[in-house]
Amino acid sequence: MHTFPWAAELITRALHEDLGHADITAAALVPATARATAEIIARQATVAAALPIAAQVFTTVDPQAVCQLLVDEGTRVAADTVLLRVSGSARALLSAERVALNIAQRACGIAELTATFVAAVAHTRATILDTRKTTPGLRMLEKYAVRTGGGTNHRFGLYDAVLIKDNHLAFLASTGATIADAIQRARQYVGPLVIIEIEVETVEDAQRAAEAGADMIMLDNMTLAALRCAVTAIAGRARVEASGGVSLSTVRAIAETGVDYISVGALTHSARAADLSLDLVATIR
Amino acid sequence: MHTFPWAAELITRALHEDLGHADITAAALVPATARATAEIIARQATVAAALPIAAQVFTTVDPQAVCQLLVDEGTRVAADTVLLRVSGSARALLSAERVALNIAQRACGIAELTATFVAAVAHTRATILDTRKTTPGLRMLEKYAVRTGGGTNHRFGLYDAVLIKDNHLAFLASTGATIADAIQRARQYVGPLVIIEIEVETVEDAQRAAEAGADMIMLDNMTLAALRCAVTAIAGRARVEASGGVSLSTVRAIAETGVDYISVGALTHSARAADLSLDLVATIR
Amino acid sequence: MHTFPWAAELITRALHEDLGHADITAAALVPATARATAEIIARQATVAAALPIAAQVFTTVDPQAVCQLLVDEGTRVAADTVLLRVSGSARALLSAERVALNIAQRACGIAELTATFVAAVAHTRATILDTRKTTPGLRMLEKYAVRTGGGTNHRFGLYDAVLIKDNHLAFLASTGATIADAIQRARQYVGPLVIIEIEVETVEDAQRAAEAGADMIMLDNMTLAALRCAVTAIAGRARVEASGGVSLSTVRAIAETGVDYISVGALTHSARAADLSLDLVATIR
Amino acid sequence: MHTFPWAAELITRALHEDLGHADITAAALVPATARATAEIIARQATVAAALPIAAQVFTTVDPQAVCQLLVDEGTRVAADTVLLRVSGSARALLSAERVALNIAQRACGIAELTATFVAAVAHTRATILDTRKTTPGLRMLEKYAVRTGGGTNHRFGLYDAVLIKDNHLAFLASTGATIADAIQRARQYVGPLVIIEIEVETVEDAQRAAEAGADMIMLDNMTLAALRCAVTAIAGRARVEASGGVSLSTVRAIAETGVDYISVGALTHSARAADLSLDLVATIR
Amino acid sequence: MHTFPWAAELITRALHEDLGHADITAAALVPATARATAEIIARQATVAAALPIAAQVFTTVDPQAVCQLLVDEGTRVAADTVLLRVSGSARALLSAERVALNIAQRACGIAELTATFVAAVAHTRATILDTRKTTPGLRMLEKYAVRTGGGTNHRFGLYDAVLIKDNHLAFLASTGATIADAIQRARQYVGPLVIIEIEVETVEDAQRAAEAGADMIMLDNMTLAALRCAVTAIAGRARVEASGGVSLSTVRAIAETGVDYISVGALTHSARAADLSLDLVATIR
Amino acid sequence: MHTFPWAAELITRALHEDLGHADITAAALVPATARATAEIIARQATVAAALPIAAQVFTTVDPQAVCQLLVDEGTRVAADTVLLRVSGSARALLSAERVALNIAQRACGIAELTATFVAAVAHTRATILDTRKTTPGLRMLEKYAVRTGGGTNHRFGLYDAVLIKDNHLAFLASTGATIADAIQRARQYVGPLVIIEIEVETVEDAQRAAEAGADMIMLDNMTLAALRCAVTAIAGRARVEASGGVSLSTVRAIAETGVDYISVGALTHSARAADLSLDLVATIR
Repeated sequence: MHTFPWAAELITRALHEDLGHADITAAALVPATARATAEIIARQATVAAALPIAAQVFTTVDPQAVCQLLVDEGTRVAADTVLLRVSGSARALLSAERVALNIAQRACGIAELTATFVAAVAHTRATILDTRKTTPGLRMLEKYAVRTGGGTNHRFGLYDAVLIKDNHLAFLASTGATIADAIQRARQYVGPLVIIEIEVETVEDAQRAAEAGADMIMLDNMTLAALRCAVTAIAGRARVEASGGVSLSTVRAIAETGVDYISVGALTHSARAADLSLDLVATIR
Repeated sequence: MHTFPWAAELITRALHEDLGHADITAAALVPATARATAEIIARQATVAAALPIAAQVFTTVDPQAVCQLLVDEGTRVAADTVLLRVSGSARALLSAERVALNIAQRACGIAELTATFVAAVAHTRATILDTRKTTPGLRMLEKYAVRTGGGTNHRFGLYDAVLIKDNHLAFLASTGATIADAIQRARQYVGPLVIIEIEVETVEDAQRAAEAGADMIMLDNMTLAALRCAVTAIAGRARVEASGGVSLSTVRAIAETGVDYISVGALTHSARAADLSLDLVATIR
Repeated sequence: MHTFPWAAELITRALHEDLGHADITAAALVPATARATAEIIARQATVAAALPIAAQVFTTVDPQAVCQLLVDEGTRVAADTVLLRVSGSARALLSAERVALNIAQRACGIAELTATFVAAVAHTRATILDTRKTTPGLRMLEKYAVRTGGGTNHRFGLYDAVLIKDNHLAFLASTGATIADAIQRARQYVGPLVIIEIEVETVEDAQRAAEAGADMIMLDNMTLAALRCAVTAIAGRARVEASGGVSLSTVRAIAETGVDYISVGALTHSARAADLSLDLVATIR
Repeated sequence: MHTFPWAAELITRALHEDLGHADITAAALVPATARATAEIIARQATVAAALPIAAQVFTTVDPQAVCQLLVDEGTRVAADTVLLRVSGSARALLSAERVALNIAQRACGIAELTATFVAAVAHTRATILDTRKTTPGLRMLEKYAVRTGGGTNHRFGLYDAVLIKDNHLAFLASTGATIADAIQRARQYVGPLVIIEIEVETVEDAQRAAEAGADMIMLDNMTLAALRCAVTAIAGRARVEASGGVSLSTVRAIAETGVDYISVGALTHSARAADLSLDLVATIR
Repeated sequence: MHTFPWAAELITRALHEDLGHADITAAALVPATARATAEIIARQATVAAALPIAAQVFTTVDPQAVCQLLVDEGTRVAADTVLLRVSGSARALLSAERVALNIAQRACGIAELTATFVAAVAHTRATILDTRKTTPGLRMLEKYAVRTGGGTNHRFGLYDAVLIKDNHLAFLASTGATIADAIQRARQYVGPLVIIEIEVETVEDAQRAAEAGADMIMLDNMTLAALRCAVTAIAGRARVEASGGVSLSTVRAIAETGVDYISVGALTHSARAADLSLDLVATIR
Repeated sequence: MHTFPWAAELITRALHEDLGHADITAAALVPATARATAEIIARQATVAAALPIAAQVFTTVDPQAVCQLLVDEGTRVAADTVLLRVSGSARALLSAERVALNIAQRACGIAELTATFVAAVAHTRATILDTRKTTPGLRMLEKYAVRTGGGTNHRFGLYDAVLIKDNHLAFLASTGATIADAIQRARQYVGPLVIIEIEVETVEDAQRAAEAGADMIMLDNMTLAALRCAVTAIAGRARVEASGGVSLSTVRAIAETGVDYISVGALTHSARAADLSLDLVATIR
């Protein structure tokens, strides 16, 4: 429970979804007492992520299964690398195969994409952040994969930080409230252990937010020139995050504007799954 | 519950994940009694999918919210199309925004990719199938998105059909059992309402499987020439599925070999999310 | 989880139902450290079924309990046969007794009744099927008991096969749709891994269903003469199931009409529980 | 929630079990907007029970469904009586049919069997009790059905009354404790709102139990003569229950011995399901 | 599961509430492989209660943790007594600390307050009872703490005994029903294993309740003189409970009126938490 | 779900705990169709809190119940004030009474105690904070009650802020790590939206923590003189919290040392329940 407190529920749910009332193929063809050894192999170069979770899938189905993790989390691996070896009930390995792969292939894909973005800005002081554009039900896995790939997590949900976004400001504007009012109201509502960030779209609003005491300012969809101006205008009074339409072709230039953080939705919403597979390498009836 | 019996649990789980103990930004800034109208807009061309589920997200947070679905499921829409309009508690709309978008953007992305594959084989008799390479916990949503995009569903899990795969055959081979033995054992185990499919990698095995009475035969990673031979060898005795390494650049030629079905893992594991956003269009304090 | 993935939830629920906040009798009378050995005994001749599930009840309450299964599943046993021996916490054995017995007595009763039906048609080619007339929440246990008694499972739920029944046809008839229309629509909706069965009440409809390509045809409540005619009319184009009002006094004659399958609701909805009891055979304070 | 607080969970579980990911037959054949009216009909004479629960099954699947209960709970009905009429989504009615019937047919079967036992002892002062030999997960439904059939409930679980049984006494005997010790220890452990019953097998033990202050004494598997002696020996100091091997052929004579209560396991573990069916009586596309 | 069947759910819920997606402090600062030993210490004199539950908190987070319970449940301990020692994963101990303390400090506080009340009436025949004025979700823990402190439990919920209260009588009075009617109706509804208690406010009603056959009578908010009269009027025909406004300054005099039981809501709703803390006493990286 | 997303689960759990299989008293005495009006009344002066949650208890049991909240949250009320009026099913009101009261009496008690502490420091700049010393499972309710009483929330759990405590520092000291190391490691681990607080016991450590860049510093169990020195030493570089042994007799002097925040465990772990009751004021059979 400790290392990945969210993993057990994710695994149980995914196994239930795939197994339903029974794995009828394994039940028909594989004796309950048969044992086997299997390996998860990366069919393409990728970044290892969530292999301990994949191992936990096997031990959930067969508590006596023994797993060896052959690659450290976050390692870049070449094609055809064996990532994990597991021995246990042959039925269990076959029944758990797809869930283990589905989890690991998604995490590796995210970690790899994150690592690519991180490398692209390594010559700057900018840090790559994720977003809340995660797959419903997989946020903890996906944010873990981002960290494994070298990225840093933005907030985990609506509960652990204040982020005043365009729609909040649109609502407040309709009531005559200003950026400064918004920041002040948030400060009054939350306790001293909560960060307040605000999204702005102009240099002027960035300046206003800094003056009003925002802890962090998100510069949304600004030009490079505007980003540079905003960094200057904020002048270190708040952490600065660039967001909006960030891609591998634009991230380097954004990082060079001097922002502290760049958030990238694509890390989690559009990563391609890594190509992993599981092979039985030995069987004992 | 009826139309999408799986949706309520998915929505509850996703809201719980995002909201945690509270949406502290909305609680701080938006009065509990304020009302608003918002729209979900496609920022890029896509195929509409899961809009009723997105609507259900809003009505879960605010049972009095009223949603208009402006586009039929499965419709191809241009960039900047308004897909859904919702009126209700301003807090509820803001708190539900990200979950509604995360669900819809994933479904639209899958539907759009599916539609592209379906179009690529429209001149043949081949049908595009999905796989079990789905996101853990989202299989029902993702298979629904495939159907919405014009695809057809392969089995839903390990429980509703027999699929004898390479690893099963590897296990059985170690015990001296043949393809025919495997099919026969499966037939004895399951009742008459269960389909038996088998995966083969050679034309000879395809022929053996057809002779042994398989209902459906998956030709895995075969060359185009081998696919053609296998179709001929099976000779209509079983449904024929091609699988393995199918991409938009290869699917057309595969379809032209005469197979009945082509399964494409990428539909669900590597679709890019559609670019959707939510805008407040009116507010009432 | 593997062998009986459904068992843990059933056991937890049943224990919760019976134990509530505590077994106050055991708590009052039996020291927490006392140990005992107990046996489950068949008080009447029956067919052993679900003994591993009964064992799992004891190990759920006392994970250190040790169980010996003394009889193989599906074995016909005489009165006074000891089926299972368990050693563990005396309190745990006493608290788990009733749940273990309630599960096993129901499963044995179903297995025994199934075995009786199977024996009655052993001279024919007919196979005995169960139905969905199961106890709510116990379908997996009851269908397992049917298999243990030598029967074969019909579909597991509304999700794993299409069965077009009288009420569906009544609905469709009101819209002018025919049996052939129904079969065609179902074929279009489901993928290639789903069987389509249809229920008919006349020989003519059976013929129409066979012509329309049904995979399986249920002949509901037909006379023996009509069953024979229908088998001839279907002529091997679909699997044939007889259903409706099947009892031990009618099943033999029905089987002799040449049908492939006979479904019997009474297997699960009207089996009498086997008479099992638990005796403490040794105790250690 | 109020009238039957246990029903919602039972219904949800049963629907989930039957529907799984979807009712694929209804989804294929019945438009989402079609409406219908259906009736639950008793195909044999029985005692109406759990019709409000059956109605709740329909309203769970379609909250807009409207149900009419045509027969009061506990009423004896003739064959072909219409018990319940429901109008709502055609898909919902078809998807909910089997769960509603499975619940009602079990409850009616139990109520009818209970009513038969109650009638058999109506000329005496004896009351018919149920036991804990219920179907796992259905205890509340089954005990409700017993009440509906005119019976009275024994304890609901291990938590709401003390019942010192043979195995407890066997354990205590091994430590030198007597019947009086057992009763005294129980009295010390539980508060004043808990009844203490003890099971005995001889007239002597019945007398000892009465002297030791048991609130209720279960006479297990005694002859009619012994029962009469025990009633005399207890002399009104405790309520008297006869149990063990009670059938319709023996219950009358047992009741005439003067016992206050007769508990009958068969009420819940071996009742035959009533023959109920659902017919669509009108449809609107 | 056996000794405290309710504990696992309470612990899981409390850990989930406190840990959320992760203990980010421990994750940042303590290596996953580090081990430590910690002690729970009473900072003030108290009565030990729920130490096994506190131990279970640690083993839930780290199943390999080893706990020593250094004080028996119910023991009065001096300030600075070490109550429990646990060795295991350093991260696990730190993450579980607050939940373990929150449970134990509440239970010890209740046990201590109960023991004080029990001591105050030790010279009389009166027994101290708890009430249903418990913290939502903690009733089993709190009633266990009452027993540990030497008190006795009143009913556990609305399900295990009948208690006819002022509001029931107010309702019945509006329909013309008397106290005797109420008792008779309750007797008819429940089986013979359920106690019937009634709350009265006058000596006359106490007498009526005794005549009508109540098993137990609650004298609510009566003067000492009235309590004495009521005890005399009831004359041993029912158990007698005094309730309402009982405090340490009044309980002794109430007990001396001759009532059998005195129920004290403050035991559970207003006990102060004991001052417990956890100290790391050894660490191994 | 929106205003109090945590309330539904708390209410369901509490009702389940109290109702179990049924409220047998209400079922026996009150017709299912009877209706009534009831009021929750404060028997003592208190601060209103959680009345909307109490209302939700009634509407959970009877969705048609109508509640009027007669007092705003956070209002100080005199003894005998009617707080809430509810009309609905008489059975539902009686069954829900205790759960509604148990929730509200605890929340009011906490709000009242909080308000007393807040008033005691109103002449200073100090803010009263709660802690994680909450009742397991009730943290959201109790933290809401603190806010309602005018207090401010410290972190909600281990997940939303870093708090490096004595035990973390003890662990780190054993590895040679300093306060500055601890703060730096935490900063590297968490993203930019997470506050880092550290607990210190000396003025020197407070100075070190401020230099190392802690966002907030908890001064634990310091003398008034030391608190003043620490405030001076920190010199506005971090928010300052005093904690440890704070009571109504000490809080004023602590506040006058110039700290920003004072955390008070007693707010949630030792508040006395407010004395609330429910009276039926009208009934209709």
